[in-house]
Amino acid sequence: MKAQGVDLLLLTPGADLFYLTGFEHGHAGERLLAVVLKQDGRAQWIAPAMNVPQVEDRAMPGETVRGWTDTEWYTNALRDAAAGARTIAFDDDARAAFLLDLIAVAPKSRLVRASEVMRSLRIRKDASELAMLRAVARQVDDTIDHAIHLCQPDRTEAQIDHELRAALLAKDPESSIAFTIIASGPNSALPHHETAKRKLQSGDVVVLDFGTRGCAPVTGKAGAEMSHSYGYQSDITVTCAVGEPADVEVRKVYSIVRDAQQAAIDAVRPGAICEQVDHAARSVIENAGYGEFFPHRTGHGLGLQGHEPPFIRAGEGEVLEEGMVFSIEPGIYLPGRFGVRLEIIVSVSATGPSLINAPSAAQLPTPLD
Amino acid sequence: MKAQGVDLLLLTPGADLFYLTGFEHGHAGERLLAVVLKQDGRAQWIAPAMNVPQVEDRAMPGETVRGWTDTEWYTNALRDAAAGARTIAFDDDARAAFLLDLIAVAPKSRLVRASEVMRSLRIRKDASELAMLRAVARQVDDTIDHAIHLCQPDRTEAQIDHELRAALLAKDPESSIAFTIIASGPNSALPHHETAKRKLQSGDVVVLDFGTRGCAPVTGKAGAEMSHSYGYQSDITVTCAVGEPADVEVRKVYSIVRDAQQAAIDAVRPGAICEQVDHAARSVIENAGYGEFFPHRTGHGLGLQGHEPPFIRAGEGEVLEEGMVFSIEPGIYLPGRFGVRLEIIVSVSATGPSLINAPSAAQLPTPLD
Repeated sequence: MKAQGVDLLLLTPGADLFYLTGFEHGHAGERLLAVVLKQDGRAQWIAPAMNVPQVEDRAMPGETVRGWTDTEWYTNALRDAAAGARTIAFDDDARAAFLLDLIAVAPKSRLVRASEVMRSLRIRKDASELAMLRAVARQVDDTIDHAIHLCQPDRTEAQIDHELRAALLAKDPESSIAFTIIASGPNSALPHHETAKRKLQSGDVVVLDFGTRGCAPVTGKAGAEMSHSYGYQSDITVTCAVGEPADVEVRKVYSIVRDAQQAAIDAVRPGAICEQVDHAARSVIENAGYGEFFPHRTGHGLGLQGHEPPFIRAGEGEVLEEGMVFSIEPGIYLPGRFGVRLEIIVSVSATGPSLINAPSAAQLPTPLD
Repeated sequence: MKAQGVDLLLLTPGADLFYLTGFEHGHAGERLLAVVLKQDGRAQWIAPAMNVPQVEDRAMPGETVRGWTDTEWYTNALRDAAAGARTIAFDDDARAAFLLDLIAVAPKSRLVRASEVMRSLRIRKDASELAMLRAVARQVDDTIDHAIHLCQPDRTEAQIDHELRAALLAKDPESSIAFTIIASGPNSALPHHETAKRKLQSGDVVVLDFGTRGCAPVTGKAGAEMSHSYGYQSDITVTCAVGEPADVEVRKVYSIVRDAQQAAIDAVRPGAICEQVDHAARSVIENAGYGEFFPHRTGHGLGLQGHEPPFIRAGEGEVLEEGMVFSIEPGIYLPGRFGVRLEIIVSVSATGPSLINAPSAAQLPTPLD
């Protein structure tokens, strides 16, 4: 905070607050629940009156808790907390309405993103974070074969989605589903397709992109380990075909995407620049003549959030350091025909890339294999 | 927008955008996807390049779509969209980081909440919205007996939660779970308890608060009905006891909360003021000597969001109009002992209250009944 000239850091329930305090709360909604941290280390919590016992259970010694009632609302608490702060770093993922409220009560304060402070703390994962990322990655890795097997003719994307979610949760009932994308046939040409009711047909390409959120153990006040539903995430993408692909270009495209992924993995090492890793994948696809059909970055960081720094994209000058974790997920999407995307998560180790997931299949898999 | 002096309305995927356009998208995250509506009715979409086909499929004739790439990022698109706007209404529920970006590119614009524009549109539900709210309410109503039956000794809150979610989804596989609270024994004294691993004991009070999100049918461009996972919500709270309650005050408190709920329902009619409905419930509880143990408002609006206007609280001067829908959920919470909350959803009809849910049980129910 000192280095960034930030007087006050304001965080609401989410990844940053969980990272610093182990506190999570799923029911705050439009009621402000926040921790306000000062540069000198003092902290105050602002909480709806009815949540004060839950916050007190988590607050550290010396931290004050200011409760507010539904009648009073939180405006005064927010004004008092912000008083005198020249620069306030505000939670990137909080509701915009809270930020508008803060602007109204502290119109002269300069506002910056909380990630300017939190980014450097969260971007390098320590050994216990890497262990949790590996554990939750196993959950999706161990479900890949089943997911591909679900891609049978006449099943809808929604049915596959339903069964895939059940299979993931069966592997770890304490986990939750972060997201799923089931994109079949021409839908696979949409990188962020919303799973729909389309029925799979023989010869379809299917892109399966899914992730879960593990349960992070947090040490409570009394030293007891408590399980929290807020945890480290997994994220994998596989592409398969329902039998022999109908489009003759599929196997060629699959092979190019696989080569692009490997080239990006090979570019990972401490000191490499994010855009170099993106370029490694992109140049394979460009050299094969498909550059215009790779419309997204090569990857994104993964941790307590599904998308977080570092971002593996052109123009990104961030230098890779040991402990950074991100996806490598090049894709080629031919509109109206099909798409292929292959994603794995890697971490930066002292000597180079370390795979968090099992490698993507060398050849296009099918449920009929 | 004219009445509020708003030049530009900026909405990201969420309830407001869905209400106006039927568009939803679950994978935008840190990438800005927005509709920018001008006071003269012109609209522009800003979308990640890879989502442009999905947005074009939903945009109305004459609406432009500006795609941006991961390399370019969305800053220029946002600056161009905001150019010249004196007052911009910004999505209440968007990420705060997007609002900070807007402030950076349009530092002279006045910023207000989008709800200042959207509130009056969304707060009165029409016949089709009421029908959807009733349909999704039946889903939770029909699960109440099962939910109470799940509250057997030695089961954990988490196990009950798991089975309750499955039972809800079995009633309508197209729906999704909006939230659940399973609060047993002393945990029931926390209005927003986070479901934990506590084992139920004979004599416990259990507060079960749960809601689902129905599937809203949206008419597509070609007139075809499409199902969308973004839809109207249900929200119910029941309180039961695992056999005869161990605390002798439970039955008395239950009866007071039931009376308070009925008094608030009886106060609902067009022209009544929100705070009067709150007062009707609160005075029953205060007169019984439990005023200090009712720490939250009496209710909140319900629609595409779980909490939306109107808010039934002291100091709220909003006048009830036909078509408004909200919860009535008084509660009494005795710290360290137990809590009782009873919630149903009502709509304002021409003649008075109209129940969206079945009435709360007159007597404390138990799974052993």
